[in-house]
Amino acid sequence: MSGVQGYNPRTGAAVGEAVPETSDREVDALARAGAAAFPSWSGLPAVERAAVLDAVASALDASSAELVEIADAETALGVPRLTTELKRTTNQLRLFGEMLREGSYVEATLDSANPGIIPPRPVLRRMLRPLGTVGVFAASNFPFAFSVAGGDTASALAAGCPVVVKAHPSHPGTSQLTAQIVSSVVPAGVFGIVHGQQAGVALVKHPAIKAVGFTGSTVGGRALFDIASSRPDPIPFYGELGSVNPTVVLPQAAAARPEGFAAEFVGSLTLGVGQFCTNPGLVFAPESLVPALANAVSAAVGGPMLNERMSDSYRSGTEGLAASGLAALVASGTAPAEGWSVEPRLYQVPLSTFAENLEKLTEEHFGPAAIVVTYTDPAELEPVLPRLPGTLTGTVHAGEAEHDAAGRIAESLRPVVGRLVFNGWPTGVAVAWGMHHGGPWPATTNPLHTSVGATSIRRWVAPVSYQSWPDALLPAELREGNPLGIPRRVDGVLGVH
Amino acid sequence: MSGVQGYNPRTGAAVGEAVPETSDREVDALARAGAAAFPSWSGLPAVERAAVLDAVASALDASSAELVEIADAETALGVPRLTTELKRTTNQLRLFGEMLREGSYVEATLDSANPGIIPPRPVLRRMLRPLGTVGVFAASNFPFAFSVAGGDTASALAAGCPVVVKAHPSHPGTSQLTAQIVSSVVPAGVFGIVHGQQAGVALVKHPAIKAVGFTGSTVGGRALFDIASSRPDPIPFYGELGSVNPTVVLPQAAAARPEGFAAEFVGSLTLGVGQFCTNPGLVFAPESLVPALANAVSAAVGGPMLNERMSDSYRSGTEGLAASGLAALVASGTAPAEGWSVEPRLYQVPLSTFAENLEKLTEEHFGPAAIVVTYTDPAELEPVLPRLPGTLTGTVHAGEAEHDAAGRIAESLRPVVGRLVFNGWPTGVAVAWGMHHGGPWPATTNPLHTSVGATSIRRWVAPVSYQSWPDALLPAELREGNPLGIPRRVDGVLGVH
Repeated sequence: MSGVQGYNPRTGAAVGEAVPETSDREVDALARAGAAAFPSWSGLPAVERAAVLDAVASALDASSAELVEIADAETALGVPRLTTELKRTTNQLRLFGEMLREGSYVEATLDSANPGIIPPRPVLRRMLRPLGTVGVFAASNFPFAFSVAGGDTASALAAGCPVVVKAHPSHPGTSQLTAQIVSSVVPAGVFGIVHGQQAGVALVKHPAIKAVGFTGSTVGGRALFDIASSRPDPIPFYGELGSVNPTVVLPQAAAARPEGFAAEFVGSLTLGVGQFCTNPGLVFAPESLVPALANAVSAAVGGPMLNERMSDSYRSGTEGLAASGLAALVASGTAPAEGWSVEPRLYQVPLSTFAENLEKLTEEHFGPAAIVVTYTDPAELEPVLPRLPGTLTGTVHAGEAEHDAAGRIAESLRPVVGRLVFNGWPTGVAVAWGMHHGGPWPATTNPLHTSVGATSIRRWVAPVSYQSWPDALLPAELREGNPLGIPRRVDGVLGVH
Repeated sequence: MSGVQGYNPRTGAAVGEAVPETSDREVDALARAGAAAFPSWSGLPAVERAAVLDAVASALDASSAELVEIADAETALGVPRLTTELKRTTNQLRLFGEMLREGSYVEATLDSANPGIIPPRPVLRRMLRPLGTVGVFAASNFPFAFSVAGGDTASALAAGCPVVVKAHPSHPGTSQLTAQIVSSVVPAGVFGIVHGQQAGVALVKHPAIKAVGFTGSTVGGRALFDIASSRPDPIPFYGELGSVNPTVVLPQAAAARPEGFAAEFVGSLTLGVGQFCTNPGLVFAPESLVPALANAVSAAVGGPMLNERMSDSYRSGTEGLAASGLAALVASGTAPAEGWSVEPRLYQVPLSTFAENLEKLTEEHFGPAAIVVTYTDPAELEPVLPRLPGTLTGTVHAGEAEHDAAGRIAESLRPVVGRLVFNGWPTGVAVAWGMHHGGPWPATTNPLHTSVGATSIRRWVAPVSYQSWPDALLPAELREGNPLGIPRRVDGVLGVH
């Protein structure tokens, strides 16, 4: 049987044993086990699911050293970053536990009867309930936070959905160890893991799978979205795909501190060797800022990418950009002479050329490369920005006297952007109520949803209404007297009642 | 040029002039006009959009007599029903106006900074904002409430989305008159209407259309869903499709008042000549109830269906059912000898046969036909009910001592049902906060959404987060001090703050 082999990006050498690819029969067994576990898992009181999520978090924290060691061997992302990422992951699990205890995520809604209106209203009770077993495709670039026990898994488990994860082939050992830890805590059938591309396809097609979460490339995500959408019974597919993350630097902000700005930019660009969905790959700046940006990129040091394919793809993509004659290479950093390392790169193109070749120049080149698009007057940007492909983030840097212009730029960006950042950087995605990590196609396959933050749980729950239903037969969330003490909407009014 | 001709279902005669089919060029112009109007329409304060919705409602009410007259000529649904349906439609527009004034639909969320946690949290503000111009496919069976100015249009306009409606060919004159009234009230570009199948396809494919709402058949909805999903940029497609609406009658409820129950059942079955998405087409009952049901159906009078195709399809579908040998025709009502009239029909099948031929026996036969599935012990139903295709409603009739059994039946139904009705009937869909008019495939193309009720607005809005954004540049909903006085979530806590 073929297997999924992890490699050390610093050396190209194999790490550990290959993990066997999961057969269609095994996928079937895991999906069915999820379906069998669904009634009991979804039927647990939310506070009990919260306790399980907390226990998963504690178990992962307790194995931090071991998890980080194998993840570093398989990804070369470094011990400090990976230690922080694991902590982010366990805090994320705990956030969902807090949400379950707060209870408003079910949107409990109580309407009294009104027979006198048209149409007449019976007694109605509405809440969100879990969809069923969920498939989760782990990402390459976050071996913890967007992987086996990452945000998709945490939010789906919190919702009451069993999860079957398709592991990413760049870190099979990390994935297996994480899966063992999760499995040791959650009830049987609630969690499973599969390996191999064919297993992923089988998972999306399986009748017991009711929704899918995915973080990865536009090409891979689109292929799976098409499979999910063309099932006899189409299911929701939430893909977080590519993103160019435009950053607009207004003239005063550019002039105020070019070197400081350039240093921050390069910090964001090269974080994790540029392997962030929110990597600032497209900068709109006055020509005067280019030397500082070029200097900073020249001084920057790259590193090994997660796998050989990504490294090759970064090289060929960026070289294709220069060969197209549309963008000029203005700076190139260095890279350690090891494994799959790549160097940071900066390209330049005038706004007019960019506007004429927008589709070609907004292809994502995953890694530490950026294009600086030079403009003269910020007003020239307003017709161009709404034409950008959908993107997770849009950033504006503005001086004190440029707030009005920043507002206009933001309005131009808003239709294509999920998160607007002011005088900051798009990398670093907070796990919070107020986070939206999403955006229009191709940033995601569904602009209504986020894959990070409290509201990511929405992807896995659907409403059900109970009409004239006996109180004793209702879920506790909907009973008279609000026995759980959760926020509810009663006759249209939100409150703890 | 070909046209869309309305007909009188009572006579088969043409009503008025044919309405020209809309050319691709005209569709393009309307979609572009929507996109051009989007910034100003979505930029209006919510309370101002509410005033426009109220004005649309008043204008429609003012033309009630004229609208009902042409709708009755084109649909034969009758003046009383159509008068009520128009009132329902205008009340629906006003409900969305109330929602806009209440303001919580934008889910305003404010998080303060917390640099000490992992990952650190900047100041975040999140709210829902409209997607852009929306396509709406009107239904045949509700010429007002699910048509040109129906729930999809009302919720999309409320959200801030311009709307282009594809009229249903069964009532082109009603559609044109409604469209004229809406257009006379809303700003230019915010509303448009198209006619003809090709125009509908062009609408779903148009790059300026950002989401689509649809009410209609499973076949038609699936075809359009596939087009929406296979666009270069897939867009959300919300289709409300077919539904079998199971009704389970427990033994005591069946024994208590067989004639009264049967009379109510037939009332629900034949309402609007059975042309309701929530028509109770599948009844699980003890054998002892069949005579009463059969007597009631025999005494029932049908009427003309909306168009010739539906009438033919009802006849061939129900005749095919009898010819299959799986279900026996146990009662047939009468029908007026006019136009496209059909008579109510009742079929019977034992539970074991039903369970073995579930797929064939759960095809929807749009119209006043039902299958009664006879069972002996309610426990036999529990493994069968979760195998039903996704459906808008599930109903349980239970006696006083049968509440426990009703709870178990409800849990069996819940995974496939959008709304659970107790001791009532699924027809009659309240427009309320607590309504969910949706369900798993094939009831809808997306189980997360409803096409009726306050939360139907969710289909047209997507989140945006503002990170470290200057307060003065934020939308009013997100500013410090809550200038609009709307319910918001501040650091995780819901309230008016």
